[in-house]
Amino acid sequence: MQLPSVLLENAVAEFAKLPGIGKKTALRLVLHLLKKEEKEVNHFSETITKLRSNIKFCHRCHNISDGDICSICSNSMRKQNIICVVETIRDVIAVESTQQFNGTYHVLGGIISPLDGVGPDQLNIDSLIARIKTEQTEEVIFALSPNIQGDTTIYYIQKKLANITCKMSTIARGIAFGGELEYADEMTLAGSLQNRLPVKQYVNG
Amino acid sequence: MQLPSVLLENAVAEFAKLPGIGKKTALRLVLHLLKKEEKEVNHFSETITKLRSNIKFCHRCHNISDGDICSICSNSMRKQNIICVVETIRDVIAVESTQQFNGTYHVLGGIISPLDGVGPDQLNIDSLIARIKTEQTEEVIFALSPNIQGDTTIYYIQKKLANITCKMSTIARGIAFGGELEYADEMTLAGSLQNRLPVKQYVNG
Repeated sequence: MQLPSVLLENAVAEFAKLPGIGKKTALRLVLHLLKKEEKEVNHFSETITKLRSNIKFCHRCHNISDGDICSICSNSMRKQNIICVVETIRDVIAVESTQQFNGTYHVLGGIISPLDGVGPDQLNIDSLIARIKTEQTEEVIFALSPNIQGDTTIYYIQKKLANITCKMSTIARGIAFGGELEYADEMTLAGSLQNRLPVKQYVNG
Repeated sequence: MQLPSVLLENAVAEFAKLPGIGKKTALRLVLHLLKKEEKEVNHFSETITKLRSNIKFCHRCHNISDGDICSICSNSMRKQNIICVVETIRDVIAVESTQQFNGTYHVLGGIISPLDGVGPDQLNIDSLIARIKTEQTEEVIFALSPNIQGDTTIYYIQKKLANITCKMSTIARGIAFGGELEYADEMTLAGSLQNRLPVKQYVNG
């Protein structure tokens, strides 16, 4: 695709670096911006620059935050002694949007995956252990990816906490709501048979 | 979707204004940018600001350009007396990428569409007429959308050029390569029967 201007080409190249955006979509976005007022476009780029230079991460849970401590960690209405351990900030947003969790989070920044070169040292695991020890946490809920890497990460953290009395759980695994039995993989189906729930508990939530 | 930071929320809102990008995709893009070096993010936003403030449009054909006259209009190797009339800059790029056209373009900026409030005055039609008259254009090829609005636009321009001798044509309409006959609409199929081509001409290109 030959573009008629170097400026246009540069802008398209920058947009095409974003995940899931190819050169054609990038061109569509850039031409859309070109139709806007100069003021609006400047506002767009300023917002992004400002975000990157001013963003902070919560010292306690590593979530994105406007201050040193995020709004969840500083909220006294939430149970500060329950920690939900997640991989990324997007997972925090996903759990928050269920409106079913009233504790705090700890963002690991990933999961242990030797194949991808991610070991425990690259993750916020030490700060999680320290936090559980000093804060006398009541319960740790692991909401990690349901795969080998996620299980490895849970196993690793659990070993590190061997001498600490603290409830530990993982989110339930089974057939997703609306999913079809025949398409479920064997491990999921076997697990959901093993961990079957009393009908009463299920129906009454 | 509740976001943990105002800065993040602003950036997501800006991205979500772009066409085809919802709030979830916007969040993914913004979190991707957050993982990048500050220098890279600044480069991203500077490129966009620079594009909007420095971009020029060719005085002759209204295509995007780095100077007053675009690289196509200033190219003496191209047939300057053949004009391909298109709606948008994206159409110029599409025709260029076929590498089958060696003339120049004229970007109308849209087509006549009273329902959308677009009349001839909002389009670059006057400059096209003036250009054809002064440049003694040999042929005008209309490459507009194959619909009522496109046909209206061609009819309007053709009326304006009634007293000028200049070849006028539109790009061929018919079944697209790889298309299936049974799914073609009646107008297209009827038209492609009417305008059937001698097999020899078709096979030899």
